[in-house]
Amino acid sequence: MTAFGWQPIYARRADRMKASEIRELLKLLERPGIISFAGGIPDPELFPAAAAAQAYGTALAIEAGASAALQYSVSEGYGPLRHWIADHMAAHGVRASADNILITSGSQQGLDFLGKLLLTPGDTALVTAPSYLGALQAFSAYEPRYDTIRPEQSNRTPASYADAAAKEAPGALVKFAYVVPDFANPTGETLSQAARSRLLDLAAELDVPVLEDSAYSALRFEADDVPSLQALDLSRCGSLNRSRVVYLGTFSKTVAPGLRIGWICASRAVIGRLVLIKQASDLNVSVINQMVMHQLVDKGAHAQLIAKARAHYRPKRDAMLVSLRTQMPSAVTWTKPQGGFFVWVTLPEAVSGYSLLSRAVEETKVAFVPGAAFFHDGSGANTIRLSYSLPKPAMIEAGISRIAALLR
Amino acid sequence: MTAFGWQPIYARRADRMKASEIRELLKLLERPGIISFAGGIPDPELFPAAAAAQAYGTALAIEAGASAALQYSVSEGYGPLRHWIADHMAAHGVRASADNILITSGSQQGLDFLGKLLLTPGDTALVTAPSYLGALQAFSAYEPRYDTIRPEQSNRTPASYADAAAKEAPGALVKFAYVVPDFANPTGETLSQAARSRLLDLAAELDVPVLEDSAYSALRFEADDVPSLQALDLSRCGSLNRSRVVYLGTFSKTVAPGLRIGWICASRAVIGRLVLIKQASDLNVSVINQMVMHQLVDKGAHAQLIAKARAHYRPKRDAMLVSLRTQMPSAVTWTKPQGGFFVWVTLPEAVSGYSLLSRAVEETKVAFVPGAAFFHDGSGANTIRLSYSLPKPAMIEAGISRIAALLR
Repeated sequence: MTAFGWQPIYARRADRMKASEIRELLKLLERPGIISFAGGIPDPELFPAAAAAQAYGTALAIEAGASAALQYSVSEGYGPLRHWIADHMAAHGVRASADNILITSGSQQGLDFLGKLLLTPGDTALVTAPSYLGALQAFSAYEPRYDTIRPEQSNRTPASYADAAAKEAPGALVKFAYVVPDFANPTGETLSQAARSRLLDLAAELDVPVLEDSAYSALRFEADDVPSLQALDLSRCGSLNRSRVVYLGTFSKTVAPGLRIGWICASRAVIGRLVLIKQASDLNVSVINQMVMHQLVDKGAHAQLIAKARAHYRPKRDAMLVSLRTQMPSAVTWTKPQGGFFVWVTLPEAVSGYSLLSRAVEETKVAFVPGAAFFHDGSGANTIRLSYSLPKPAMIEAGISRIAALLR
Repeated sequence: MTAFGWQPIYARRADRMKASEIRELLKLLERPGIISFAGGIPDPELFPAAAAAQAYGTALAIEAGASAALQYSVSEGYGPLRHWIADHMAAHGVRASADNILITSGSQQGLDFLGKLLLTPGDTALVTAPSYLGALQAFSAYEPRYDTIRPEQSNRTPASYADAAAKEAPGALVKFAYVVPDFANPTGETLSQAARSRLLDLAAELDVPVLEDSAYSALRFEADDVPSLQALDLSRCGSLNRSRVVYLGTFSKTVAPGLRIGWICASRAVIGRLVLIKQASDLNVSVINQMVMHQLVDKGAHAQLIAKARAHYRPKRDAMLVSLRTQMPSAVTWTKPQGGFFVWVTLPEAVSGYSLLSRAVEETKVAFVPGAAFFHDGSGANTIRLSYSLPKPAMIEAGISRIAALLR
């Protein structure tokens, strides 16, 4: 008997599912001696391992606690953590209550759920170019068309976006605009307040939601916070339950990604819909991990972890920017992030990021992500993303020197 | 300014997302004094809380371990756990290696991923009636048509299924058959080996995969195991990488659901596709939970937990069956499960399971699930699902007496 043939059985959407270069690159990290500027991976030196060990012990020591910690639970998430997050949002200009919060398996799951809730095949998702690769992967499963927004320039009219969307399929609509406004993945750039206002204007004229991916916003090294899109929208519409902005938060960059805990903050109506999606997708986030995360962030501990993380990553950012300035040929340019994990490098027109990566890994044991992976439109061949989060400053200098040598 | 209007922005699939009665019923459990025969919830008395506390401590005590436990990881899952599961599958008649295994957030996530991988809107999913509600919810997000299989009767031809599927939409196909062959949710019934063979015949003639949901199979109280559909298919096709059967396993009923760990065992080709879906959906299952689960099941501990669970649930099953026999009016019938959590009760034609539930909760403080929730076709109004997993035997007797009194 022949082997079963899977190809004809796959859904149409399977054509759009590709392996993530970033996830594949994680495997390179296992090679000894590699200097990795690849994935947006927090430095494990910062993980609160001792506090986590204590918190797991506490969650399992109490009789009733152990039962709850290891049992199924409600899809919305663990009550005390939802309350903590609501207070955290309020401290950042968004008056929220627990019923505005859904706990997700990292903010990646929030992106998947929002694609699932909003996208009918052929609908348009407005994204930046480049954009967070994981968001494109999450959305692509729901077969959207992509169109490009440039919030700092805002060079197209709402009508031109709507018209292009309607041409794609009968009844197709622009369904949302997705942005990473702070220390963006992959560019490291932050949207100005004026750009945020323009983006909200565009969304209002198109009458669509804005998905605000806030993964890196806590990791600011200098200057003042720019208000979140959700906070800015609240000052327009009056309250979260009237807002068009859906905010995606995560503890992965400030506490630890291994617990897989993020959240969505949005109007009650949307949270109610997303809870149904959570039920159908995986019932609930691990309860014990939610209890432990609550302990790890409660009573000021989150602020301390953030302060420590800022102090830890800032010198790494500095080392990378200094090395780039002193090592790179003049035809190479890059962004100057005020926070987060990433510097975005534009190579000379003729240099391919993929080819450079292949040479860098083979000849000099340095890894990074080719920028083209982050473009929905196939552009960006001569760009690369460098993450300074993992290597120590001396290694950052060594790694940048090696890349620069390949470009000279 | 008016509130943002979400309704026109939702995807078409949102029409098919409904709240789960079971998940909503979980909230009833918080009422004091209620006897619950509702959700398929394991008894927390069985949770290995002390072993879990020790395992979390171990995972976080070792320097390198803590870094890995709290970090991102590969989407396939934690290597040692995948190897353990491959050995476990081999011990149950399915020769598998680690690359045949994907770790999922419970088997619920496996169901969601298989819907995502296989269903284009309008395709047909073959299911039993009744069927596990969570599977219907997971699949429905991908907008299938449902058609009913009756593996114990097999009373329709392959052509009749294919023809009905093709009428639904241009290019629409039967994409899979989904079953819970052992101690099914919701009926408690187990497919005979002959029925399994007939189901594999039907799948072969239609040339579609079979999704085998094995959530309860370990909890057998008596008689011999029936070989899994995957094991039976291997004896037809020769090897797992040639098999049409996708097996969904979980630790939720034998260890604890709170860690959210299940798995899919299937041909390498399918696992490769599902890994891409895992990447895009939520990157990876919590690493620390995977490490802890590995410790909790390794070195014979899983077999001990299963033995303990069988000894624990069997008297509960007995209490329920005895109570039903002695208490119920003669017009009521029910299944006699050889394992698992559920008894399926058929009420007199004119009695609605929903009405009975509402009376049971309000008048006698007993909860269960109306059977209609498990039917894709709107039938089953006079059925209810009783789970004996949670209450103690004396409470089971009391609860059945109270329901019986409402029916007399």
